[in-house]
Amino acid sequence: MSKQLDYSYEPSRQDLKLEIRKDKPFNAEPTPPDLVKAYITPLEHFFCRSHGPLPKLDDHHVISIQGIGLETAQQFTVEQLKQQFKKKTIVMAMQCAGNRRDGLHKVKDTKGVIWGPGAIGNGSYAGCRLKDVLGSIGINCQLPDIGSLHVAFESVEQCEEDRCYGSSIPLSKALDEFGDVLLAYEMNDAPLTQDHGAPIRVVVPGYIGARSVKFLKSIIIQNQESSSYFQQRDYKILPSHIETEQQAAEYWCKVPSIGEFNVQSYVCDPADGQVESNCRQARVSGYALSGGGRGIQRVDVSGDDGKTWKEAILYQPKTDSTTTNMWGWCLWTVEINVKRNTRIVSRAVDTSGNIQQEYPVWNYRGVMNNSWRTIDRRDKNNAVL
Amino acid sequence: MSKQLDYSYEPSRQDLKLEIRKDKPFNAEPTPPDLVKAYITPLEHFFCRSHGPLPKLDDHHVISIQGIGLETAQQFTVEQLKQQFKKKTIVMAMQCAGNRRDGLHKVKDTKGVIWGPGAIGNGSYAGCRLKDVLGSIGINCQLPDIGSLHVAFESVEQCEEDRCYGSSIPLSKALDEFGDVLLAYEMNDAPLTQDHGAPIRVVVPGYIGARSVKFLKSIIIQNQESSSYFQQRDYKILPSHIETEQQAAEYWCKVPSIGEFNVQSYVCDPADGQVESNCRQARVSGYALSGGGRGIQRVDVSGDDGKTWKEAILYQPKTDSTTTNMWGWCLWTVEINVKRNTRIVSRAVDTSGNIQQEYPVWNYRGVMNNSWRTIDRRDKNNAVL
Repeated sequence: MSKQLDYSYEPSRQDLKLEIRKDKPFNAEPTPPDLVKAYITPLEHFFCRSHGPLPKLDDHHVISIQGIGLETAQQFTVEQLKQQFKKKTIVMAMQCAGNRRDGLHKVKDTKGVIWGPGAIGNGSYAGCRLKDVLGSIGINCQLPDIGSLHVAFESVEQCEEDRCYGSSIPLSKALDEFGDVLLAYEMNDAPLTQDHGAPIRVVVPGYIGARSVKFLKSIIIQNQESSSYFQQRDYKILPSHIETEQQAAEYWCKVPSIGEFNVQSYVCDPADGQVESNCRQARVSGYALSGGGRGIQRVDVSGDDGKTWKEAILYQPKTDSTTTNMWGWCLWTVEINVKRNTRIVSRAVDTSGNIQQEYPVWNYRGVMNNSWRTIDRRDKNNAVL
Repeated sequence: MSKQLDYSYEPSRQDLKLEIRKDKPFNAEPTPPDLVKAYITPLEHFFCRSHGPLPKLDDHHVISIQGIGLETAQQFTVEQLKQQFKKKTIVMAMQCAGNRRDGLHKVKDTKGVIWGPGAIGNGSYAGCRLKDVLGSIGINCQLPDIGSLHVAFESVEQCEEDRCYGSSIPLSKALDEFGDVLLAYEMNDAPLTQDHGAPIRVVVPGYIGARSVKFLKSIIIQNQESSSYFQQRDYKILPSHIETEQQAAEYWCKVPSIGEFNVQSYVCDPADGQVESNCRQARVSGYALSGGGRGIQRVDVSGDDGKTWKEAILYQPKTDSTTTNMWGWCLWTVEINVKRNTRIVSRAVDTSGNIQQEYPVWNYRGVMNNSWRTIDRRDKNNAVL
């Protein structure tokens, strides 16, 4: 099963202040308190999610575009993209679909890297709009049956599961005037680093991180989703009765792939909402966000296991007057009373009125966990593990 | 406080099979079982939500468009709109933000018409795209600061609360190529009836019904939301600690107006999930939907108070290849075992992974209730009221 994968081009990671969840491929996340220290997450605290060894590429790297609406494949070097298209900057939350998987893994074993609440970061990404690049070669909203077309992305990144990392989004998202899908070459005002997909990656705001393909190699306009493992047999919310790889094998095709993520919040400081047993008051802070550009309208925080709630103070600047979407996360803080031995919890409401559910609803891949309660895993003697 | 409102132009309603919630203005909804008899809700079973007496207008009625980007006001008669712009048909769920208010009203008194689960219908609407009409007079995505602009709609409909009914949506929604905002003059393949806004109304798919302004009189491009009562002091989710009109008065401006609605489902047959106490098995059906074009990926149904869940079979045809959005609702059905004296409940998951919460989270206006549990209101002796 194991392919020969060459890890000799990995970058130095000595400056990263991250907890390593997996070494090869490299997967790591910050501690919860580090995560909410700044509105724009610095690279040292920005989670890394790789699917294989990282390639080392430069600005001569070529991206090809082909498929429906194009007679011949078109090619751009990274250098050309930088020169020929206007640069746009967006602040957006990059969140792995597996963020907070640990909460579901406590209910029952899940398949995947056991992320805590740190598989998320709020970055400032800059690059050219995919819409502009596609428009320059004649791909626009006039294409027939546009609602059934997709844009597939392929990466240079090799991996165990497939010949390369790949994914897709609906073409309508890519061409949406307010969709802000970028071919990004900068992050936090500096050139993209290798851990984040240098020299160029897709960023799809409002969508799970899996669609923001790093080390972009090719773009294909096609009449179905990407056939990649990561679009078809991963990153889907299987129903709770699907519990094994064998059952999943027959079920993947019945469940839609995840695009936009759900409403989410978490108590990061004190870490995981856990205070000393003699603590009666706490200043609490955390993050909240929702998918598809939906903003956060309220975060309720409880120190008495959900009996009473207090509204937190939100910090979510609107950074761009050309969009109505809220791609960035919201940081929040509140001072509350805490009942003895009680985990502090938060519950966010987005602008559509979606609210976090109370109990985790387990799924095999452990994706999109957004429950406000954490159910501790216990041993045979009912002790918390 | 009461204005002189003239109710002499109300239509005959003898063919409607609806339960009247309020006579003047006319507010009525179907029984839950009637609601899910057909994918496209016939007019006799389609809820009516009025804010005042209905005007009687014809195709000579004039709609004016003015504001930012326009030097002078532009005017179109309904007749001209029909002749000059291409007709588009969309199937969409029209849902009042107060749908299922009764569930919150059982927790504590709410302000508003006490709707059951029938303040919703799935209609086929046809008309011209607002985007096309605006485009014809030079309003398009090139306007500066487009992210901060809004389209306000005013109605001929008079009402107690304000000089006329009014509302607004972000201009970006109106201009979205895939937004499908229509100036509709047909519903279910026939001219719009008076109860549904004849001769012309706005329909804003994926948004609460309040934004789909009936009897459209004027369209104004402006740099803030509508100042209407219905945009500013209604149709907002106030936090639970706001319990009186006085508290609300100071709080309205702190809370965003609702646009897209949240994930929702309901057991309609048997009505409200209630079966005879000797019933051990039931064939159950209901509806499910989510806002903003998000589809429904799963509906779980429980006959044992949420201990176990069974996946329902979904019916949600995709009706239009020019959009990736799911504006229509989803009907579902399932056969399940029922525990004695237990209300059957349903819980939907949308394509973004949002799921209905367990318990109602009360808000003063009783809007956007989507909990899967119903908490019965009880008297002093703890008997269900």
